[in-house]
This record gives sequence, C-alpha cells and structure tokens, in this order.
Amino acid sequence: MKIGLDIMGGDFAPQATVLGAISAYKALKPDQKLVLIGDKDIALGILAENNFDPDSFEYVHTTEVIGMGEHPTKAIVQKPNSSIGIGFKLLKEGEIQAFSSAGNSGAMLVGAMFSVKAIPGVLRPAITSIMPKLEEGLGILVDVGANADCKPEYLLQFGIFGSLFAQYVYNIPNPRVALVNIGEEEEKGNILYQAAHPLMKETKQFNFVGNAEGRDMFSGIADVFVCDGFTGNIMLKFAESFYDIAHKKGIKDAFFDKFNYEQYGGSPILGVNAPVVVGHGISNPEAIKNMVLLSKNMVESALTDKIKLAFQ
Amino acid sequence: MKIGLDIMGGDFAPQATVLGAISAYKALKPDQKLVLIGDKDIALGILAENNFDPDSFEYVHTTEVIGMGEHPTKAIVQKPNSSIGIGFKLLKEGEIQAFSSAGNSGAMLVGAMFSVKAIPGVLRPAITSIMPKLEEGLGILVDVGANADCKPEYLLQFGIFGSLFAQYVYNIPNPRVALVNIGEEEEKGNILYQAAHPLMKETKQFNFVGNAEGRDMFSGIADVFVCDGFTGNIMLKFAESFYDIAHKKGIKDAFFDKFNYEQYGGSPILGVNAPVVVGHGISNPEAIKNMVLLSKNMVESALTDKIKLAFQ
Repeated sequence: MKIGLDIMGGDFAPQATVLGAISAYKALKPDQKLVLIGDKDIALGILAENNFDPDSFEYVHTTEVIGMGEHPTKAIVQKPNSSIGIGFKLLKEGEIQAFSSAGNSGAMLVGAMFSVKAIPGVLRPAITSIMPKLEEGLGILVDVGANADCKPEYLLQFGIFGSLFAQYVYNIPNPRVALVNIGEEEEKGNILYQAAHPLMKETKQFNFVGNAEGRDMFSGIADVFVCDGFTGNIMLKFAESFYDIAHKKGIKDAFFDKFNYEQYGGSPILGVNAPVVVGHGISNPEAIKNMVLLSKNMVESALTDKIKLAFQ
Repeated sequence: MKIGLDIMGGDFAPQATVLGAISAYKALKPDQKLVLIGDKDIALGILAENNFDPDSFEYVHTTEVIGMGEHPTKAIVQKPNSSIGIGFKLLKEGEIQAFSSAGNSGAMLVGAMFSVKAIPGVLRPAITSIMPKLEEGLGILVDVGANADCKPEYLLQFGIFGSLFAQYVYNIPNPRVALVNIGEEEEKGNILYQAAHPLMKETKQFNFVGNAEGRDMFSGIADVFVCDGFTGNIMLKFAESFYDIAHKKGIKDAFFDKFNYEQYGGSPILGVNAPVVVGHGISNPEAIKNMVLLSKNMVESALTDKIKLAFQ
C-alpha cells in the first residue's frame, strides 16, 4: 500500500508535515509506504535535521503549491503540477491508494471530483467530521461543508456514507443514523429536512433512528448525524470555538479534550472513488500522523469498495 | 404599565411562576403592575404559603391550560380560555402592555400571530436569544426557531429586529449586525445566504459588518447574529448542551456561566404588535422574574414602536 501525503499543505507545512510523516512511519508496517509529495529538497533537509533515514519514504517532487486562500477550482485547473494536483494525478493513476493534505480544503474537494470523481450513483460526495460523545465512543457528522445546498436525496446518501464509515473504519456495528433537526417529531424541520426524514425512515441501507436536535449531538442516541453542509459547517466551527475557549481557559476535562482535532487526523471526503482526507489547516505533526493513519485505515477497510457496493 | 404573566406555563408552573412573580414584584416600580393569568385559587394558595400580600398583583382567572406537548395552532384555536389564549386576548385589547409565558412556545408564537399580529411590513416575526460573549457584553441571535424556511428578505428584516432590540433594550449603540455563514467572503453560503448578503450589505437600516462563522459566535465581531430559524435553533440547543455538560461537570467559569438562561429570562418574539416573551420550559423562579423584567424593559424602551417606525 502506498499512501500519498501532500507535504506542502497546511499552515505549518512543510515542517509539520514532514515531522508528521516521521511519526506516521513508526506506526506503519513495512509494506505501507508513505509517498511524500512536494518539494523533495526541503523534505530531505528536514529529515536530515532530524537524523531520519530518507529511504524510509518515497518522494514525488513538485514545485508548485496551492495557497490556502486560492480559489479552489481556479487553483486546481491552473496548477496541475502543484502538490495537490500531482497527488490527485497519482491517486487517479493508482500510484498511491490514498491521498491526504492539510492544505486548501476546497482545492482538495475540487481535485477529488475532477480526478478520481464521484462513485457512480453518488449525487454529491460529502465531508465528515468527528463529533465527540459525552460518554464513550464518538459520533460522525456528515456533511460538514462540501454541500451548502442539498436535496433530500443527498441527505439520504450522506447517511449511507456515514453508516459505512462508522461501521468499517470505526468498527461500530450497525451504526445508528440520525437526521439533525429542530425537533424530535417526524414532521419537524425546514422543507429539506421534512422531505429527507421519510426517505431515511424508509431506507433499508442503514439503521435510521430518527431526528437528533442540537442538544443531542454529544449524546449516545446515534453514531452518525446527517445534515446539509451549511448546518454541519456552522456546528463544526461552533464546537471548535467551544473547545478553543475551554482550552485557552485551561479547563482540563476528558470530554473537552475529545474535541482536539489532532487525534482524529482529518476529515475524509466520502463518495469519491478513492480514500481522500482533508486535514485541518493548523495541523501539527501529531495531526498529520493521524491523518496518514486514517488514510491507511480507509484503505485497509476497503471503505471505498463498500460504498461502491452500496450504490450498485 | 400592566405586564401579563402566564402562571400556568412551564415545567414547574404554577409554583415557579408565582414565586417568580414575587421576586419580580420586588424589582418593579409601584406603577408597574403584574397581572397573573391562570388559576387564581392556586396562585393565592402559593402566595399565602409564602406570606405574600395577594394585593400586590392583579389576577385574571382562567381554568384551561395548553400543555407543553400540544399542537400549537390546534391548542390556540380550541382553547381560547387557556391562560395563553386569555393572555393574548388581554394583550390585543390593551389590558396588558406585555405578555410572557414559559409554556408551549409554539402556542406563544401562533397566539401572537393570531392576536396582536405581525407589524405591517414585517414578512415574518422572529424569535431571539442571547449568545454570550467570551469577553464583555452579549450577542443576540435571531431567528432561533420561528422560521425554519426563510427567504433572503426575512433575514434582512431579522437584522432590523435584532439591531433595534440590541440598541433599545440592551443599550448597545449602533449595533453591529453579522450574517451567520460558512465563510468570511461575500459569496459564501447556500443560496439563501448568498442572496441575503447583498441585501444586508446595501441596507441603511442597520450597521452590517459581514459574515460571521460558527467560530465567531462568542467573539466581539458583532452584536447581532442573523440566521434562519433552522440554523439558529440548532445552534442554540447545541450551545445549551455545552453549557449543561460544563454545568454537570462542575466546571466553574464566568464564560460558561453566561450561558445560564435564567439570567436572560426568555426569548422575545420580535416583529409583532406588542412585547411578547417566551420563557424556557424549565424556567425556575429566577428565570420567571427575569422574563417579567425583560417584558418590562421592552415596554419601557418602546421597542415595538421603534420596529413599527422602521417598517413605515
């Protein structure tokens, strides 16, 4: 297995990404090879500074970088030789089995759509994120930003992605899928959610448990929480701000600690033809390591095949 | 001034509401009379138990109650003699200048729309809630649930409500109004928010400061945060769950304490022809007291007239 990592992506790249690669290497098996995509000379320099054997990795040298503020579509089209552009080229050609980057997340989404493309039958790929639980376990929130405007059928499909991701990557048997909503009753919600509820209730593709309100997000009532990307993105950033505040205030608590994005590594883009993970822009080496390991888990679990099967 | 209070509304009514009325009495001036609407005999019993002079209040005896779980429209139509039904009748007839209840919030919204009605020019009244700030001051979130489906023009109007509420009730000069969104850039958002942004940018009716992301809700970048009622309701309940968790964990912190709904009293319904406040179902006497005082502040500030003026 070859796992591609964009070493130029993220606020602290390439230092944080190369150090993250070193940490990941120690957790990978010999046949799980990490491919560093980006400026090879810089990478070798950082490895030398850290007395780390450069033969531990493979390299694909690139000279262009897509900046964090660049327009995703323009950047992907105009910079095919960027680390993200080359990463997706390698992924499409099967040279690597997964690709991850903490760089421009919009470019990662567009790159995935343009290169490996959506799985046939998938209306819209979606981005997932972890929603910690007050008690044990974790929840999966989908979509957190790929689709600001959704149709009811998209939400149904997000439920399929989330359920398979929870089952095969996080080993949650028969995951309970909830629809984020403003009330428990079936008829609650705006037009989109009112229409999505019966679709989710009727499907046999996952274990639907009904609506989940804003107050239920950390509870044990569901494993997967489905919403449109507008709502999910606001919730995700809202939760992050709570964590940041608790963190800055020095509040030590196991629950709040679970919000630390570093341990989850990144947000997979689900519904495309290969494992793709988008890391947080502020990723440190620990986050990069976990992003690589999440990519590896997605390959090992054959999640993409499971999703393909669900859409056949 | 006469302030109507539904003493039958809320999970802990009538005990909590009558005790709250006693607390409120002590904070009101002699010409600010509290009118208790509900079962007078029960009210007098509670006052006697607490050795409180029953002549401190006026009473309007009612025998019916709208339950927390009842369908709002059906309940309002079928129970005109309920405490909520009578409260709105008195408000419409000018017998009271404000009405508040911690009962069925849907019935409060429907009751307001059916009785005092929306201010001419107002497309949709909205419900507001307080969003605490990490530093000093407080933010106002509107809408938190009255309108699950919105048009861009509704959001523009919510900005007007919020701005006037912040200015006249919370004495915030020239309130900064932000549009809740998934990015800072103007073109971000779903179709609704993309269309609302230019309307808000162009208006001269309030001080628009651009988009606010989920992570900005507790920051000092704005005083008023505008969103549709679906998004607002989810954010509000999400924030409440954070507070509840911090509270249960015994985390003592001034910021988290600001989430305690008790101190804000309730959520005004703005855009109708009279001050109406909806309290939290779990309101205790402290919350009821503050709900009454918020009603009083809304009357004193002539907020309804200010909103009417803005829509002339």
